[in-house]
Amino acid sequence: MTFKFKNVYLNATATVTGPYEKNGPLSKYFDKSFDNLYANEKTFELAETKMLKDSVDILLGKANEKGADVFLSGDLLNQLVPSNLTALSLKIPYFGLYNACATSMEGLLLGSTLIDSGKVKNAICSVSSHNCSAEKQFRYPNEYGGSKPKVATFTATGAASAYISKTPSQIRIESGTVGKVMDLGITDVYNMGAVMAPAAADTLYQHLKDMKRDINYYDLIVTGDLGIFGKQILRDYMKEAYNMDLIKYNDCGIMLYNLNEQPVYAGGSGPVCCPLVSYSVILDRMKKGELEKVLIMSTGALHSPTLVNQKLSIPSICHAISLEVVK
Amino acid sequence: MTFKFKNVYLNATATVTGPYEKNGPLSKYFDKSFDNLYANEKTFELAETKMLKDSVDILLGKANEKGADVFLSGDLLNQLVPSNLTALSLKIPYFGLYNACATSMEGLLLGSTLIDSGKVKNAICSVSSHNCSAEKQFRYPNEYGGSKPKVATFTATGAASAYISKTPSQIRIESGTVGKVMDLGITDVYNMGAVMAPAAADTLYQHLKDMKRDINYYDLIVTGDLGIFGKQILRDYMKEAYNMDLIKYNDCGIMLYNLNEQPVYAGGSGPVCCPLVSYSVILDRMKKGELEKVLIMSTGALHSPTLVNQKLSIPSICHAISLEVVK
Repeated sequence: MTFKFKNVYLNATATVTGPYEKNGPLSKYFDKSFDNLYANEKTFELAETKMLKDSVDILLGKANEKGADVFLSGDLLNQLVPSNLTALSLKIPYFGLYNACATSMEGLLLGSTLIDSGKVKNAICSVSSHNCSAEKQFRYPNEYGGSKPKVATFTATGAASAYISKTPSQIRIESGTVGKVMDLGITDVYNMGAVMAPAAADTLYQHLKDMKRDINYYDLIVTGDLGIFGKQILRDYMKEAYNMDLIKYNDCGIMLYNLNEQPVYAGGSGPVCCPLVSYSVILDRMKKGELEKVLIMSTGALHSPTLVNQKLSIPSICHAISLEVVK
Repeated sequence: MTFKFKNVYLNATATVTGPYEKNGPLSKYFDKSFDNLYANEKTFELAETKMLKDSVDILLGKANEKGADVFLSGDLLNQLVPSNLTALSLKIPYFGLYNACATSMEGLLLGSTLIDSGKVKNAICSVSSHNCSAEKQFRYPNEYGGSKPKVATFTATGAASAYISKTPSQIRIESGTVGKVMDLGITDVYNMGAVMAPAAADTLYQHLKDMKRDINYYDLIVTGDLGIFGKQILRDYMKEAYNMDLIKYNDCGIMLYNLNEQPVYAGGSGPVCCPLVSYSVILDRMKKGELEKVLIMSTGALHSPTLVNQKLSIPSICHAISLEVVK
C-alpha cells in the first residue's frame, strides 16, 4: 500500500547523538552530541529521554515554531518511555507508535497523512534509541561483557526529529509505502540484518510496483539498519526474487560509523540509526543538489525477548518514504 | 486537537474474551469466549495472540470481506507481540500503535484519518490484552498470589476489532479528539484510575470545547477503564476544574464485570476493556435506537515498570471518539 502525498514538506530536522556517533564519520552533521552515554542524567532511560527532548527543542528552534498540532513518536523502550515523557513536556496531542526500528518512517507516513488530509497543519515526528537502555532490555546489560558475533549490529544512541507541514520547503515528502510483517523463521537475536532483509525487499518491490518505477529511478536508496551482512542479503534477495540489481544503494547502519575502527560489529541499528543518517548527511547532499530523489526505508525487527525465550522466530517490517528536492 | 470526519463508518466489530468476561453481565454480546485463560495455546502471550487473530477472522466474516487495505493494532505486551503476529498472518500493511489502554481509540483516530484522506478504502483497527500476560509483565505473575488493594483494576482478557470504511452503515465515526500526556505525580501502580482520570478530564473538556458542545450533548459518555474510584475522581475533577456535571456517564471497566460477585477489585482495565464494552452492548443499544450520540474515551496509563522502579510517576493519556447513529 503506497500513499502519494500532494503537499507535504520536510521543513526542519534535528539530530542528537551519543559519543559513539560523535566519533563516527558524520559527526559534523549532527546538531548536538553528548560525550557521555548518561547525557548527564541518572539512568540510561532518562538519558535517552533527554536526547529526545533536546532533539525536539532544537527542531522547534530550527523550524522557528513554538510547538506543533501533533506529536508522533516511538522508541525501543517498553511502553515507549522516552516518547511518553517528551509528549508530557511538549503538552501537545500525541500518538505513540511502535514498529521497532521502522518507527521513524511509520511516523512520517502517518504524520504526512494527517497533514495531507488537512486534519493538522504541522506535526513533529520523532524517534530515539540508546545502546545501553536497549541492550539491557533486549539482550544483556553491557556491563555483563558478553561477546557478540560478527553479524550483530550496534544499537545507535540518539534522537531524531522532523518538522513536517504544508508550508513549502526544499524537501518534499512525495510518497510512502506501508510495510507488511514478514517472518522467515530466524531466531538468532544477534542477526537482525538477516531478520529484516526480506521485509525490506518486500517493501521496496511493492513501492516500485505501486509507483511504476524502475529500481534506478532513485538517486539513492537507503535501508535503516541492515548492516554489512543484511545489506548483501537484500542485494541477493532483490536479484533472486525479482531479478533487480540494487546498485545505488547503501545502509544507514554502515554509514553511521567507521566500521573498521569502531566496535560496532556489522554496523549501527536502532530506530534512530536511519533518521540520524537520513536527516543529516543525506538531506545535506539533497540540499546541495547531489541527490534529487531518495527512498528511505526504515527496517524494524519486531524482536520480543519473551517470544524468543519461547523459541519463536522474529518477525520484521519495513516502511519506505520517498523524498524529493523541490525544483 | 479534534478531528472531524466526513464519511467514515463503523461497518462491523468483533469481540473475543476470556472466561472472566464470559462470566460477566455482557456475555451474550460477545462473538466468542474462551473457557480457559490459555485459549488452548501453550503460553499466555500466544493465548492473547489467538484471541486477536480470532477477532480479526470473525470481523472479516461479519464485514463480508477477505482483508483490508491496512491493519492498525496495539496491545499491552512489550514490542506488541500479539499485534505483530496477527499482522504477520494477515499479510496486509501494518501500523503498530502504543498508547497503553488508550490504543483502541488511537487506532480509530488514525484509521478514520487514513479513510477520510482517501489514502485507504478500509481499515481494521484492533487491540488486545490478557490478564496473565499483562500482570506478569507489569507487576507480578498471578501465580505469586500477591494481594491487591481495593483501588486496583483487573486487566481484561480478550481482543476487539473494528472494520471501518467509507461505505455507509448504521454507525458513523463523527469526530475524535487526540489526547495529551498528563502526569499528576502518582507512583502507585495499583491505582490506575487516579493516574488516568486527569487525562480523561483534559480530553473530555478539549473535545467539548473544540466541538462547541455541552456536556449533555451526548446520550452517553464512557471512559475505558477508570474503575469505581477513578470514575468518581473524574466526576469530581470535571465539577471542580470546569464546573461541569458529568451525569450521562459510565465506565467500561465497571460495565464489563459483576463487581459485587467477581474478583475484579475496582473494575476492568486493559486496552481491550473499552472496546469490549463499546463494541458489544453500547453499539447494540445504539442500533436499537436507545442511544444516538456516544462519546467513547479510552484511557491509558503509560505505566513502565522500569521507570516506576526508578521512583518516577506514571503518565497517562486519553483519546476520544464520537459515534453517531445514522438516521
